[in-house]
Amino acid sequence: MFDLRSYIAQQNKLVNEYLESIYQKADDSLRIVQAMKYSLMAGGKRLRPILCLAAAEAVGGEAVDVLPAAGALEMIHSYSLIHDDLPAMDNDELRRGKPTCHVAFDEATAILAGDALLTLAFEILSSVQISEATDSAKWLSVIRLISRAAGYHGMIQGQMLDISSEGQQLSRCELESLHLLKTGALIEASLLSGAVLGGGNYQQIEVIERYAQNIGLAFQVADDILNVEGDPELMGKAVGTDQLRGKSTYPSILGLKESKEFAKTLVRNALQALEFFDNKSDPLRAIATYVIERKH
Amino acid sequence: MFDLRSYIAQQNKLVNEYLESIYQKADDSLRIVQAMKYSLMAGGKRLRPILCLAAAEAVGGEAVDVLPAAGALEMIHSYSLIHDDLPAMDNDELRRGKPTCHVAFDEATAILAGDALLTLAFEILSSVQISEATDSAKWLSVIRLISRAAGYHGMIQGQMLDISSEGQQLSRCELESLHLLKTGALIEASLLSGAVLGGGNYQQIEVIERYAQNIGLAFQVADDILNVEGDPELMGKAVGTDQLRGKSTYPSILGLKESKEFAKTLVRNALQALEFFDNKSDPLRAIATYVIERKH
Repeated sequence: MFDLRSYIAQQNKLVNEYLESIYQKADDSLRIVQAMKYSLMAGGKRLRPILCLAAAEAVGGEAVDVLPAAGALEMIHSYSLIHDDLPAMDNDELRRGKPTCHVAFDEATAILAGDALLTLAFEILSSVQISEATDSAKWLSVIRLISRAAGYHGMIQGQMLDISSEGQQLSRCELESLHLLKTGALIEASLLSGAVLGGGNYQQIEVIERYAQNIGLAFQVADDILNVEGDPELMGKAVGTDQLRGKSTYPSILGLKESKEFAKTLVRNALQALEFFDNKSDPLRAIATYVIERKH
Repeated sequence: MFDLRSYIAQQNKLVNEYLESIYQKADDSLRIVQAMKYSLMAGGKRLRPILCLAAAEAVGGEAVDVLPAAGALEMIHSYSLIHDDLPAMDNDELRRGKPTCHVAFDEATAILAGDALLTLAFEILSSVQISEATDSAKWLSVIRLISRAAGYHGMIQGQMLDISSEGQQLSRCELESLHLLKTGALIEASLLSGAVLGGGNYQQIEVIERYAQNIGLAFQVADDILNVEGDPELMGKAVGTDQLRGKSTYPSILGLKESKEFAKTLVRNALQALEFFDNKSDPLRAIATYVIERKH
């Protein structure tokens, strides 16, 4: 029986040690570095890095070889949270139970810390030790994958839609495309980066893509459900906030029961995609199941 | 006699056509795309792209082969202006005679448009058509060069210093390191990217680096001088603003006369570095002279 809890603990350690090693090169006395570290080391779930490592392993690669991609993905996720929390956007004062970056520092520093994390992501993706000629091409294609997912046709467009749709009732189709952009694109890029760098062949990468598309949406549906019935203490943040803000969510469109069914279907599809793979994809399987069972 | 005016017009056309070709792939109906285009196409001087192209030519390369780098550099410059202009930073309402991005659109859109331009820069740097195996390695090293220059140890740290030093009298040394970070780093990266992609050898790249370090600072000194005695109509922006804001500038520290001398010395050093090169570096020579003669 695969033990997800210890797998996550072990991969988390790997990712955090990698991120710490990046910071050891930076000058801690700089306010910008303090703000970057404050947000990046605020105890996130490290979902994107862990998916990246697990995808690399699923196709036969080694987690340790893809760490720069895993770290870069977490930096991009962290930058997006800092900017989303800003007064001009969601105006959130708490994140993971701690003051958000612009509250702990100030608005200008938060904007620049986000910018700096985004830029640092591309710095570490382009600073890998290249051992073979083909490696350069692989890392270049991962930069392309990640920048497309994070850019104006991906995550940023998702945030634009999210802001402009606040207070409006979206259709199910509109909500789905919002989530595919806002969170799905980067989750997909995390899995694909791992698969490409892990040496996956064309067929394996296609499987990972199908898994990714289902699991990315499942995470969002589960998040929406947790915002209705989660435990604020376990989650480190308030619940019921989506409804207060008049945000369209899966529960608000489909109802709670059907949202749970939908999440289950997505997870089933993700698991089906993996049937092609051997037990090296057990972590991806376990993560899929965890999506609908997690409490925070 | 080298004709800088027509050289700049021709390179400008090349860069603008390249940027237009990038936008033709984007969906113009999206507000984020409109905001990105609004700022990127607001009639900037295209200094960084032109330096990049000129450096490529100086080492024997072709301008057309380095256009993705030139375009990416302009996107990064444009993003930095959008974010610098925000209410939480310099709170500027005019840029090049037009309303700044957050005034023309709104603050959230401006933050995201900046993020999107920064991300798009790395997308186009990683989406080049690669013809040889060595090309991947070259583009990867250019991504590294540019991300380092733009990041927390370069341009972003410069902006942090700029904000924190407003109203304070800086020493000459502090002012110099501020400018080396805030504008010098990206100008240097522009020239080095061109030299690397143009196929420059080690010695050539060193020459370009020496030229870059002098010319980057010379531009800033000249900007400071223009802010004192420039013509607001020619410049499309108000003058005397540095003094009003209590900003430390070269004229405020050295006086106007000595600032002009300093700019001339920097330009002389830049020209000296180029002595090693043949007439393919005439554009770089002419640009150096133009720095202290320009009126906007």
